Amino acid sequence: MAERAGLPPLQQRWWGWGDPAHVATVEPHALAWLAERLGDLTPPRPPVALEDVRLAPAALGEEVADRLAAIVGREHVRDDREARVVHAAGKGYPDLIRQRAGEPEAAPDAVVLPADHDEVAAVLRECDRAGVAVVPFGGGTSVVGGVAPLRGEHAALISLDLARLDGILDLDEASQLARVAAGTRAPALEAALGRHGLMLGHVPQSYEFVSVGGCAATRSAGQASTGYGRMDDLVEGLRAAAPGAELDLAARPASAAGPELRELLMGSEGTLGVLTEVALRVRPRAEVTRFEGFMLPGWEAGIEAFRALAQHELAPDVARLSDPAETQMSLALAGTGGVKGRLAEGYLRMRGVAGGCLAVVGWQGDVEGVRARREDASALLGRAGAVALGRSPGRAWARSRFETPYLRDELLARGVLAETLETATTWSRLAELHRAVAVALAAHAPVVACHVSHLYATGASLYFTILARQQAGDELDQWQRLKRAAGDAIVGAGGTITHHHAIGRDHLPWMADEVGEAGLGLLRAAKAELDPRGILNPGKLLPGRPGRPA
Amino acid sequence: MAERAGLPPLQQRWWGWGDPAHVATVEPHALAWLAERLGDLTPPRPPVALEDVRLAPAALGEEVADRLAAIVGREHVRDDREARVVHAAGKGYPDLIRQRAGEPEAAPDAVVLPADHDEVAAVLRECDRAGVAVVPFGGGTSVVGGVAPLRGEHAALISLDLARLDGILDLDEASQLARVAAGTRAPALEAALGRHGLMLGHVPQSYEFVSVGGCAATRSAGQASTGYGRMDDLVEGLRAAAPGAELDLAARPASAAGPELRELLMGSEGTLGVLTEVALRVRPRAEVTRFEGFMLPGWEAGIEAFRALAQHELAPDVARLSDPAETQMSLALAGTGGVKGRLAEGYLRMRGVAGGCLAVVGWQGDVEGVRARREDASALLGRAGAVALGRSPGRAWARSRFETPYLRDELLARGVLAETLETATTWSRLAELHRAVAVALAAHAPVVACHVSHLYATGASLYFTILARQQAGDELDQWQRLKRAAGDAIVGAGGTITHHHAIGRDHLPWMADEVGEAGLGLLRAAKAELDPRGILNPGKLLPGRPGRPA
Repeated sequence: MAERAGLPPLQQRWWGWGDPAHVATVEPHALAWLAERLGDLTPPRPPVALEDVRLAPAALGEEVADRLAAIVGREHVRDDREARVVHAAGKGYPDLIRQRAGEPEAAPDAVVLPADHDEVAAVLRECDRAGVAVVPFGGGTSVVGGVAPLRGEHAALISLDLARLDGILDLDEASQLARVAAGTRAPALEAALGRHGLMLGHVPQSYEFVSVGGCAATRSAGQASTGYGRMDDLVEGLRAAAPGAELDLAARPASAAGPELRELLMGSEGTLGVLTEVALRVRPRAEVTRFEGFMLPGWEAGIEAFRALAQHELAPDVARLSDPAETQMSLALAGTGGVKGRLAEGYLRMRGVAGGCLAVVGWQGDVEGVRARREDASALLGRAGAVALGRSPGRAWARSRFETPYLRDELLARGVLAETLETATTWSRLAELHRAVAVALAAHAPVVACHVSHLYATGASLYFTILARQQAGDELDQWQRLKRAAGDAIVGAGGTITHHHAIGRDHLPWMADEVGEAGLGLLRAAKAELDPRGILNPGKLLPGRPGRPA
Repeated sequence: MAERAGLPPLQQRWWGWGDPAHVATVEPHALAWLAERLGDLTPPRPPVALEDVRLAPAALGEEVADRLAAIVGREHVRDDREARVVHAAGKGYPDLIRQRAGEPEAAPDAVVLPADHDEVAAVLRECDRAGVAVVPFGGGTSVVGGVAPLRGEHAALISLDLARLDGILDLDEASQLARVAAGTRAPALEAALGRHGLMLGHVPQSYEFVSVGGCAATRSAGQASTGYGRMDDLVEGLRAAAPGAELDLAARPASAAGPELRELLMGSEGTLGVLTEVALRVRPRAEVTRFEGFMLPGWEAGIEAFRALAQHELAPDVARLSDPAETQMSLALAGTGGVKGRLAEGYLRMRGVAGGCLAVVGWQGDVEGVRARREDASALLGRAGAVALGRSPGRAWARSRFETPYLRDELLARGVLAETLETATTWSRLAELHRAVAVALAAHAPVVACHVSHLYATGASLYFTILARQQAGDELDQWQRLKRAAGDAIVGAGGTITHHHAIGRDHLPWMADEVGEAGLGLLRAAKAELDPRGILNPGKLLPGRPGRPA
């Protein structure tokens, strides 16, 4: 079994992101930059105390609790305040607004922590029998309401925390395949693989807390997915439990034996089954990692350069291209040291060109491979008019790559709406999608910044950051209006409603745009087969039909 | 629209492979080699005449025929003898045994040729109303009974020939995406793409006749799929019609919007819906193509070298490694010219090593890319003890790459059982899978030869060729015994029952081994949603439950 990374299941802040011991600092010059654009910020306001969070009495009932305790052990059925509040929400903006105010929309009646596949299956059978809704909970980092405790028509709800399903169950080094328990956290997995000279390479911004099962269930993409592939590319087999069935799809490099059912479970967000094991493609640990910056002469020129990188199979493992707004924001917020100097210098050399655009690229691998790939990609960028900024902008990005969610908490405390959203489309539609979404968001927020990331031969993703002043007392509706405008613009311009955040609850209004009514019918048929009473993660992924619960 | 490649829908031989005008020659030295192993061959026996094929009266009924004619036009509803017999079978060994004898197990009551998606949808609605089974028919090249006209509990059956759904519907050059009508033949598509400087690169052995929709519906792999990806990697969007619904899944580079439903339709073999359009990833046309040969010092050493190629991302686009038996067969059958000389020379230089193994590898792309990749791969092979044989063995393979199915007809005519089957597994199990299947087959056939092809980071496929004397009067049962032994050995050793031939009817006994009863339940639920009366390709993909039709 893999060593645990030392992250006990309840360690994240219940009212915000991450490690309670970690304090993020917003520099004074950054606060000044924000105030200039959003108006004066409010003084930092702390969240309510845990004791003051509004919490309905736990509704599980003693008989069911006893039966669940008989499966997982009494100490692994928790209904204490901290456990219930930590599992009351994910980490999306509306989640944090509600949690900070001590007003979660609901909370699980208990948190149940099974140890393995068989315990998961037994818990699901019991919940199915008793009519108890189940929210599978991995790292709890969903930003789309994926772990919201919506009980639907069920009288009670448990959060099924998978933290104890931890470790490498089987390592086939010759085939570069690792069978991993679904609750294993990404850093713990990398540490365990590292002892064999191997790595996975899946590094979403939520890396420090995510579970591998959660990444598969949401089709996560990581910051290096341009190089290593998305999580759905890395999963070659899986095991899942559902009230109606148990699925065991062995790892295999490829097959023509019918539809690929693995692809039906990946992205099912806990609505069709609970992933308990994933077989992951691993690779030799990278000898070197190198990040660096370039300044591109403009947004559309930058997109063209990135398209050329992808289509010539020269895309770096990490590839981000900021639009002019994000470039200026990076420049303003970059601190006052060498990074800012290099950025500013590069930016200034672009004078006369409308809006220089910052690119951060990164390579991992063996020394010779990185050298060769870097040389070819740099040459292509150079031909596209890029100015090399050296390593400092890349290093600055890498240093702060997991810091942004902590900063968001600081901004929320100061009355700032800070949100991100993402989409993807084909290269031919990318610039127009960017324009349409930026225009839609500009009506709701003074700061709208974006970068291209995750390059594919046929297209790429766009990742937007939005900053506005909170409208006090109207925070949730304000967010809803912004989200609705962005989603409609995305779908209207041919983008997918989500490239790597998943559907959850927040993207339900656009799910029919993604797969059509026929696609929804197919997903509902799969759900009826695997989860006939609908206890698995109600209210997520599948929009309700008029007059009927989802 | 793409130009047609000049292949009218009914052009393949009804009793064998391919172009009726093409005659394959079996060289005398090859016949002698066969006779030495199988015993004396019988003198060539022609198939029965078309007029003598046993055919039940067409059972469609005038009313339904009229309704179908109203949709597609009278001339596109055919119930003439030739049309019915051509569509009575695919190109598997048992198919051809039956067809040559003039004893098809059944034939469609009519062949219907719709022009586009809407006509397909209308035909399906009419057949659903009338209770008529429908067998979607692309190139008709299935070797697993995929187009067998099994009507199940339905009173009549049509073959839905998609040949008129032909051409490129939309070409997005910037995104390297082509939306293609599902009936388009591979050579016609390559010709049309070539006029734009583009290519697809999907080249199965059946290349000259396959349709792109058929390749997607069966998860086809091509000879260059190690480089370009399997058909399921190349499809980024699709459109399908079913009696219960129409699916339109737009091309997108990636998405986290729920399960990937495209992956449910790919591999569904016409049982869930009829693919009418596929959005395919295309790429710049290759400037150069280079095939060459190497002699590896042994089978397991060769597998290790191929594994290293794949895991170091150095795999050639085409990569085949013959086991000692196939190597000797290639050497014996290679003719008497320069190819044989080079092969024999390389083989002899391996003396003292148990069983030299022939590798054929190929690269495509721009001049510099091919040079660099070839250099790196050759160096790796050299370190593994490979002896370079130069271009002639590669050229010889490339010249005859589409010839083998024609040769099979010549062997069948001479009383030879000639069959191929394929599987895939992880690298760590590959040698044991090879051994187990070879042993199982050896009990049924004097010649069992195999090659590794289709390299992945985590594993590879094995492709077996089997030659035996037909047992006159018992041909079908003889084949059934051999097939059963091979399938049981494959599944027992952890292989997939098919890497690229699909399930069809012939692999039904092992489908539960692939996906489990829970997986079958999921597929049946999908079928009930899309095809509630079960008219689509009955008796394929989904094994019947005890006492119930599939």
